[in-house]
Amino acid sequence: MKVLIVYAHQEAQSFNAALLTRSVEVLTACGHEVRISDLYAMRFNPVATADDFQERRFPDRLQYDREQKYNYQHGSLNDDIVGEIEKLLWCDMLILQFPLWWFSVPAIMKGWIDRVFVNGVVYGAGRRYDTGGLKGRRAMVVTSTAAYPDMCAADGLVGALDVILWPLQNGALAYAGCKVLPPFVSWSVNYVDETVRRSYLDDYAARLRQIEVTEPLFFHSLEDFGSNWRLKPGVAARTAGQGGPVSP
Amino acid sequence: MKVLIVYAHQEAQSFNAALLTRSVEVLTACGHEVRISDLYAMRFNPVATADDFQERRFPDRLQYDREQKYNYQHGSLNDDIVGEIEKLLWCDMLILQFPLWWFSVPAIMKGWIDRVFVNGVVYGAGRRYDTGGLKGRRAMVVTSTAAYPDMCAADGLVGALDVILWPLQNGALAYAGCKVLPPFVSWSVNYVDETVRRSYLDDYAARLRQIEVTEPLFFHSLEDFGSNWRLKPGVAARTAGQGGPVSP
Repeated sequence: MKVLIVYAHQEAQSFNAALLTRSVEVLTACGHEVRISDLYAMRFNPVATADDFQERRFPDRLQYDREQKYNYQHGSLNDDIVGEIEKLLWCDMLILQFPLWWFSVPAIMKGWIDRVFVNGVVYGAGRRYDTGGLKGRRAMVVTSTAAYPDMCAADGLVGALDVILWPLQNGALAYAGCKVLPPFVSWSVNYVDETVRRSYLDDYAARLRQIEVTEPLFFHSLEDFGSNWRLKPGVAARTAGQGGPVSP
Repeated sequence: MKVLIVYAHQEAQSFNAALLTRSVEVLTACGHEVRISDLYAMRFNPVATADDFQERRFPDRLQYDREQKYNYQHGSLNDDIVGEIEKLLWCDMLILQFPLWWFSVPAIMKGWIDRVFVNGVVYGAGRRYDTGGLKGRRAMVVTSTAAYPDMCAADGLVGALDVILWPLQNGALAYAGCKVLPPFVSWSVNYVDETVRRSYLDDYAARLRQIEVTEPLFFHSLEDFGSNWRLKPGVAARTAGQGGPVSP
């Protein structure tokens, strides 16, 4: 497979950096091709503004999503965005790797999504979920947190992991058309010893060896919804986001 | 009350700008003091890096949260962050106003949270939820979306609104100690006519006139959790994030 790792950590000696190094080794050894977007190293600009567009369909009033579509079609999106779209469309598998900050991605990665998941390519004009622009691709969230696993259990202090990750896994990755593999989480990295951290590296390596055959998370497909955008009568909610059970 | 509005929209002629203008009028007329952090206008830098710190406790390896604490205590955090912390601690009520992008805040606002909600002030050393550093303050999410309300219903296409907003409302605002008022959402703004948009402005004004007395959303308090970080036996989950019912 062609694997794109979008990576957001500032520190070369961090545990996240060790995970990244290990992932490249393992994926390469498995015969996969790997490309990396190391967002801090690239000094990636996460702020979506009118400066992203060399032309304007609506010069008088900025409508960011409509200009994304227009400028993509006219080849006038800024080069930093075009380069990332090229990597995104190249890959068969997208890994987002980041430390969990405020139960979400760091700003630099949110900005990568905001600016690179462009209207007219990834979504828009009927493209979403089963028909999303990234259809046929796999995706996985790889994150680290100071929290203990029990804090993110079904009835844990900060909430169930699948609820915490809902906007990212469902709202961005699944919405864009990806099959989303179960997330890989390095728990309480600040508090565990070297032995545990080494076991995380091995666990991650084992997960990566299976990316082609791992069963994706379940998200409802478009055909489960009626014309009122609600689950059809008789379709039971199977996700936490739609009233089904949360992850244990 | 002292109200801080953190605002993230690039376009002065947008509906969000109209909401902002109206909110300042109404809040001022009610006798509240208002300050605004207009993030795009300020060219706020959302990227958390070592450049945020004029001193370093751990020069060899960046640990962002530990340097936040150290530099706050030593008066060596960068001025742009210090200025925002000052506004944050000044306010009795925090409004986050933004267009919903990928079911979350735009990167520029995520970065405001990442860099301004500093360790040692807002959280850390036992500060969270009931004991969070922003204790005594109210907060509200004010957002706009192209989605229709039914898409964010309990069994809607993109998931229940309280699940979508969980990382922000629970993971950031409630975690920091705020009482979180029900969000105000302007639905399908791209598709409704001027009459409906005017009704949104009026509805928002009515909501703002009640901010001192509005019942906050329910989130479990620390005393509901055992030493294992899970809800105590006999405490029923009342939030979507902890296995309770989703919002209708």
